[in-house]
Amino acid sequence: MYNNTFGNIFRLTSFGESHGKAIGGVIDGFPAGITIDMEFIQKELNRRRPGQSAITTARKEADEVEFLSGIYEGVSTGCPIGFAVWNTNQHSNDYDNMKDVYRPSHADYTYTQKYGIRDHRGGGRSSARETIARVVAGALAKLALRQLGISITAFTSQVGPFKLDKDYTAYDLTSIENNPVRCPDQDLARQMADYIFRIKREGDTIGGVISCVIKGCPVGLGQPVFGKLHAALGNAMLSINAVKGFEYGQGFSNMELKGSQQNDIFYNNNGEIGFRSNRSGGIQGGISNGQDIYFRVAFKPVATVLMEQPTVDIHGNETILKARGRHDPCVLPRAVPIVEAMAAMTLLDYYLLDKASTL
Amino acid sequence: MYNNTFGNIFRLTSFGESHGKAIGGVIDGFPAGITIDMEFIQKELNRRRPGQSAITTARKEADEVEFLSGIYEGVSTGCPIGFAVWNTNQHSNDYDNMKDVYRPSHADYTYTQKYGIRDHRGGGRSSARETIARVVAGALAKLALRQLGISITAFTSQVGPFKLDKDYTAYDLTSIENNPVRCPDQDLARQMADYIFRIKREGDTIGGVISCVIKGCPVGLGQPVFGKLHAALGNAMLSINAVKGFEYGQGFSNMELKGSQQNDIFYNNNGEIGFRSNRSGGIQGGISNGQDIYFRVAFKPVATVLMEQPTVDIHGNETILKARGRHDPCVLPRAVPIVEAMAAMTLLDYYLLDKASTL
Amino acid sequence: MYNNTFGNIFRLTSFGESHGKAIGGVIDGFPAGITIDMEFIQKELNRRRPGQSAITTARKEADEVEFLSGIYEGVSTGCPIGFAVWNTNQHSNDYDNMKDVYRPSHADYTYTQKYGIRDHRGGGRSSARETIARVVAGALAKLALRQLGISITAFTSQVGPFKLDKDYTAYDLTSIENNPVRCPDQDLARQMADYIFRIKREGDTIGGVISCVIKGCPVGLGQPVFGKLHAALGNAMLSINAVKGFEYGQGFSNMELKGSQQNDIFYNNNGEIGFRSNRSGGIQGGISNGQDIYFRVAFKPVATVLMEQPTVDIHGNETILKARGRHDPCVLPRAVPIVEAMAAMTLLDYYLLDKASTL
Amino acid sequence: MYNNTFGNIFRLTSFGESHGKAIGGVIDGFPAGITIDMEFIQKELNRRRPGQSAITTARKEADEVEFLSGIYEGVSTGCPIGFAVWNTNQHSNDYDNMKDVYRPSHADYTYTQKYGIRDHRGGGRSSARETIARVVAGALAKLALRQLGISITAFTSQVGPFKLDKDYTAYDLTSIENNPVRCPDQDLARQMADYIFRIKREGDTIGGVISCVIKGCPVGLGQPVFGKLHAALGNAMLSINAVKGFEYGQGFSNMELKGSQQNDIFYNNNGEIGFRSNRSGGIQGGISNGQDIYFRVAFKPVATVLMEQPTVDIHGNETILKARGRHDPCVLPRAVPIVEAMAAMTLLDYYLLDKASTL
Repeated sequence: MYNNTFGNIFRLTSFGESHGKAIGGVIDGFPAGITIDMEFIQKELNRRRPGQSAITTARKEADEVEFLSGIYEGVSTGCPIGFAVWNTNQHSNDYDNMKDVYRPSHADYTYTQKYGIRDHRGGGRSSARETIARVVAGALAKLALRQLGISITAFTSQVGPFKLDKDYTAYDLTSIENNPVRCPDQDLARQMADYIFRIKREGDTIGGVISCVIKGCPVGLGQPVFGKLHAALGNAMLSINAVKGFEYGQGFSNMELKGSQQNDIFYNNNGEIGFRSNRSGGIQGGISNGQDIYFRVAFKPVATVLMEQPTVDIHGNETILKARGRHDPCVLPRAVPIVEAMAAMTLLDYYLLDKASTL
Repeated sequence: MYNNTFGNIFRLTSFGESHGKAIGGVIDGFPAGITIDMEFIQKELNRRRPGQSAITTARKEADEVEFLSGIYEGVSTGCPIGFAVWNTNQHSNDYDNMKDVYRPSHADYTYTQKYGIRDHRGGGRSSARETIARVVAGALAKLALRQLGISITAFTSQVGPFKLDKDYTAYDLTSIENNPVRCPDQDLARQMADYIFRIKREGDTIGGVISCVIKGCPVGLGQPVFGKLHAALGNAMLSINAVKGFEYGQGFSNMELKGSQQNDIFYNNNGEIGFRSNRSGGIQGGISNGQDIYFRVAFKPVATVLMEQPTVDIHGNETILKARGRHDPCVLPRAVPIVEAMAAMTLLDYYLLDKASTL
Repeated sequence: MYNNTFGNIFRLTSFGESHGKAIGGVIDGFPAGITIDMEFIQKELNRRRPGQSAITTARKEADEVEFLSGIYEGVSTGCPIGFAVWNTNQHSNDYDNMKDVYRPSHADYTYTQKYGIRDHRGGGRSSARETIARVVAGALAKLALRQLGISITAFTSQVGPFKLDKDYTAYDLTSIENNPVRCPDQDLARQMADYIFRIKREGDTIGGVISCVIKGCPVGLGQPVFGKLHAALGNAMLSINAVKGFEYGQGFSNMELKGSQQNDIFYNNNGEIGFRSNRSGGIQGGISNGQDIYFRVAFKPVATVLMEQPTVDIHGNETILKARGRHDPCVLPRAVPIVEAMAAMTLLDYYLLDKASTL
Repeated sequence: MYNNTFGNIFRLTSFGESHGKAIGGVIDGFPAGITIDMEFIQKELNRRRPGQSAITTARKEADEVEFLSGIYEGVSTGCPIGFAVWNTNQHSNDYDNMKDVYRPSHADYTYTQKYGIRDHRGGGRSSARETIARVVAGALAKLALRQLGISITAFTSQVGPFKLDKDYTAYDLTSIENNPVRCPDQDLARQMADYIFRIKREGDTIGGVISCVIKGCPVGLGQPVFGKLHAALGNAMLSINAVKGFEYGQGFSNMELKGSQQNDIFYNNNGEIGFRSNRSGGIQGGISNGQDIYFRVAFKPVATVLMEQPTVDIHGNETILKARGRHDPCVLPRAVPIVEAMAAMTLLDYYLLDKASTL
C-alpha cells in the first residue's frame, strides 16, 4: 500500500491522468482459473460512470475496459492482468484558465510543490477519474470473493443534513440500485436527490457518508498487529478521493456507552458459538470474527464549485477563479461502487494472506 | 505495514506477549548520526506506563528499555536498533480462570480461530502492552523529527459524554501534562477524572476521543494515490488497540457545510502563499500542504470490565466470567503517547520516502 | 522484487504475454522533472529487437513504445508511467502443435502445474518478449543515471567455447555496437558470429556469458545486510530468462588465490583514498566503494531447437516435437541491453534508497 | 529482502553487532502449531559456532539462543518470534588498533562513507557473526519444511585448488558431518583440512565453493517474473558475507554444450511424467519442477589475514595493519549451515507464497 500500488498478495498498480491517454493498471496476484465475467465488470464501471443520472456530472464517458494480458480464453491465468480504459471525452480546454492557478482545496498546490510540475488538465493524476482502475480491479476481486461466498454492499447513508436514522439491518440492501442516490430508504433517497439538485443549481457541492456491509467473511482474516483487518480497510477507504474519515463498529458514536454496555456477549447458539450483538463490527483484535463487517466513510463536498472563488496563481498573485466544465455536485452516488471495490480488494488480499499463514 | 512490521523506510518490527519474557522490536531504517536521548525515551515510556496516576491501572511496571544494537557511543549508526523491555510484574495467575474462556469483545476468540493456539495470559500478543514497542520507536522518531522542526502533540478531547467544545487552536497544548487525563482544558480534565473514578468504582470502563496536532510538517509529504499521508496516518491509528475510528480535517462533522463553505481559500500573505482556513487538515490530495495536520481517533471502552459477564468457553459451554486483575477504566490518558508515537513514525517514514522521490 | 514488480522505490510492474495484445508495465517512483528522450528509448528497444541482424531471429517486430501517463510535455511528472508495446507480428499458428505438448527445458510444464492453465502461444508469459518492459523501464532509469554520471555497459564475453581472455579494462567498450555479437574484441566477435551461424544452420542453439561494467557509481549504495548491492544485482540478473549464474568481482574464478593475494590494498592517492586493485568488484560489505562495479551473467542455450525432440503431452503420452517458428540460435547479443536495463533499474532504485537513509 | 528484513511472508528481521550486547531478530509469518525442537536449533547453531574444530577460529562462543516471544508451551503461536543470542566472549581490545584504520577488502570504508559512523569492534554490523540470526531462523524454517518432506543439504565442494570432481549424485550426502570440512568425499576432506591448516600457519586465508541440494520440493514454487525461485535463492546466497557468486543447474560450466545437449527430455515414467536429466537444476521458468534443486555458492578468502598489510586510516594517512584476534583461515566449513539456513528460509517463504496464489 505504497505509492501507486495497493495490496500485498493481490495487488493493483494503477496509472493514468484525467486527460491523458488512458487510465489503467496491472493486477498482480489474482488467482488463476477464475472465469472473467466481462459483463459484470462493465456493469460495475457503469455504476461509477459519469452521466448515469441527472444528479451526476453531465460528462459522457464510455469507460470501457480493454484487458491486455493475464486472461486466456476468458479465464484468469495467474499472470498479471494489464488493462486500460481509454480517455475519449476529455475537454481539456475547460482547464486552460487553471493552468497556472491553484484551485482551493484541490491537490494543485501540493502536487506542484512536491513534484515541481503537474498535469493541470482535469486534475491530472489527482483526479477521481483514477478510481476507474480501482473499480476494474475491485470487480475482479468481487468475482473471486463470490466463489468464497463473500458479498460487499455499500450505500449512501448521509447527504448533507439528510441521513438514515436506523442501523443497516433495518433496510433492504438489495434495493439500493432502485434510486440514483444509492440509498436503501427510497423516501429519503428522493429527498437527497432533490437536495443535490438544489445544490447543483446553486453551483455548489455537498458531502456525506457512505456505509458498507461485508457479509460471509470467514473467521480469521487479519494480520495483527500492524495489518489489522480494519486498519487495512481504513487505509483503503482513506485512499479514495475526498474521504475524510473512517469508522467501523460503534466508531465515534455512542461514546457515553460503557464497556459493560458495548461488549458483544457470547452464547451457545445450538451448539455453535454465537454473538448476542455486533457492536465490534465483525472484527476483534484486528481479525474477522465471522459476523457482518460494517463501516462508514466520510466524504467532503467536492472542491470544484461553479462559483467565483478568490485564489492565487503559481506566482502567488491573487486572482478570481471560476471553474468551467462538468462536475458532480455530490460524489456519493458514484463513490458507492468505489467503496465496494476497495473493500473487495482488501478482503481478497487478506483472504490470500490468511492462506499463507499456515503450512 | 503488514503483520508485525510498520513502515516503509523507517520500519518497526515488534514482538512480545503481555506475560512473555519481553516486549521488544527492531527499528530499521533509522538515520545514522542521531544522538539518542535516553532520558527522553524513558520519559515517553513513563507517559504510557501503568500505575502513573490514580485513574490508571494499579499495575506497577518499570518498563525500562534495553537497547541491544544500532547505537554506538550514544549515536545511531544506521544499523538496525534491537531493543527489549523486560516483563517483570506479571501476575499470570490472574488469568488462570480465563485459559479456556473467551472474554467478550477481546481477541481471544479470533486468535484461537485463526492460529489454533493462543497465549491467554494477559491477552498474550493482543494485549496493549505490545504498544511499548511503539512508544520506544516513536520516541526515536520524535528525536529525528525534532531536528526537522516537526512536533506532534496528542491530547484527550473526549471521555464518555465529556468533550472539548472548541477547536484545538483555542487551547494551550503545552498544558496537557498538567493533569492525569492529558486534556488541555483543566476544568474539563477534572470532570473527566472524576467521571473515570466513578466508572472505575463501578468496575466498568469508558471510551473517548484523542486528538492530535502535527506542527512544522513541510509541504510535500505523501505518496499518492495509495500512500496518501492521511491514509497512512489512519492506518497507523487504526492499528492501535481499541481504536474504532479516524478522521482528519472536518472528518464526519459539519456535513451540512457546502463546498463553497468548506474550501480553504488561498491568498497572498506578504509575498507568500497563505491559506484563509485549514478545514483540509493540512493535507490536500494526500500530500501535506504545510498547514497544521490534525486528526481525531475514537477509542472504545476497554473490554475488560470487573463485573460478571456471561460468555462461553472454547468448547461453546456457557459460563460466567469475572475478570480479576488490575485494569484501566479508561485507556485514553495512557494512549496519548501511543497516538503520538504512531504519528511520529509515520511522519519520519514519509519524510524519508519524500527524500527518495527526487534525484 | 516479488512476482511481477521489480524494485523498492523505483519500481517496474510488468505485464503481457508473447502473443497477447501487448507487453507493457507501470513504472512507479520515477523522479519528476526528467526530460524523456524518446529517441534514446527507441534505440534501446532496437538493440533488443528481433531481426536486427543475421544472427538473430528473423521475426520482425516494430516494438515501439506508447507511453500512456506520467509524462507531461516531454517531462516526467513523478506520477506512474504506464506504457505498452503492442504485439503486431505474432504467428500464433506456429504454436498450434505445442498447445498440449510440454517443450523440454521450457516453462510449459511448471506453469501448467502451478496455475492449472497457460497461454501456450509463443511461451505466453514466460516468453523473453516480456523483457521489452524491462528495456523500456531500464532506458528511463538510464536517463536518470546519466544525470548522476553513472554509466552502464554490458557486452558479450563468451559464446559457446569462444571467450575473451582478458579483463574488461583491456578493451575499448565503446566499440561494442560495431559488431552484431556486441563483443568488444572485433576479431573474436567475428569468430563468435561465424559460430552462431553454424549453430543456426544445425537448428541448434548455444549459450554464453555477458559481462557488465558500471562506472561512476558513488560510494555508499547498498542496504545491508539483506539488501546488499550485489545481492540486488544478482537477483535482477537471475530474473532474466535463461540466466543460470551471476558472479561479481573474482566470482568463481581464481579460487587458488589466498586472502593476502585477493585483498584490495588502500593507499594515499594524492590526498584521496585510493585502491591498488579492484578484485572486490566495486562493492564491499554490500555497499559500493566508488570503484567500477563489474559482474558476469551466465546464459544457457535457448531451449527451442529446430530439431526433433522426444517429449510428452499434458496427458503424459510420449510424442515427438519439432519446433517451427523463428527463433534465436543465441540470445546473448539481444540480451546485452536487457542486462544493462536490469542493472540500471537496480542502480537507480538503490540511489533513491540511499537518499532515504539520512535525514 | 530489503535492508535487515529477509523474505515476504516468512520474514526474518535481524539486528546486532559483533561486539554489541546481542545478535538477534524477529521471525514473522512463521506458521502456528509447529513444535519447536530446541535441541535441533542448538545443534544447528553448534554447526556454525566458532571453535568447533581445529580448522576454525579459536574463539569460544556459547551461542545459545533465548527465545523471547511467539512460542507458548513449546509450540509456535503464529505471533512474531523474538530471539537473542547474547555476546559473551568478545575481545574488543583486539580491535583497538583498527578503530581509525580501514582494513583492506572489509566493509570498514564503505560503512563509514555511507553512515558517517561505524562500530569498528569486530567488524560491527558487517561481521559474519550476524549470520547467527539466520541460522536460528533457518532452523525454524527447517522444522516447518521437515513436515512438508523438504530437505536441504549443503556441503563444501571446493577449498582453494581442491575440488570434488563429480556430481553431487555420486556422493553420500549423509556423510558430510563426518569430517570438519563438511565435504562428502572423506579423502578429499582430509586434503582440504591439511591445506587449511597450512594456510592458517601462514596467517593467510582461502576461499572455495559450497554446493547445496534441495530434495522433496514440490512442483510449483516460484513467483515469476521477478520472483523466480532461483533469483530468490541467488539473492539469499549473495547476502551471505564473502559470497561472490551463485549458479544453479549448469551455471557457468559446460558452455560448449548446445541446446540439444542441454535440454531435459520428458518421458512417460510408468504413467507419470519423468525427466531424463536434470541440467535445469530443478527450476524451469522460475518455478520448481519437482526435481532436485541444486546450486553452488562462491566464497572469497576471508579478508582478515594475520600478516602485515599496508592500508590507510580514516584521514587517508598510510599505515601498516597487523590484525590480532582469532580468525577463520577458511569460512567454508562454518558457512555450510548458513547456506542451508538461507535456502530453508527461501523455500518456506515461497511455499507460503504459493499457497496464497490460489483461492
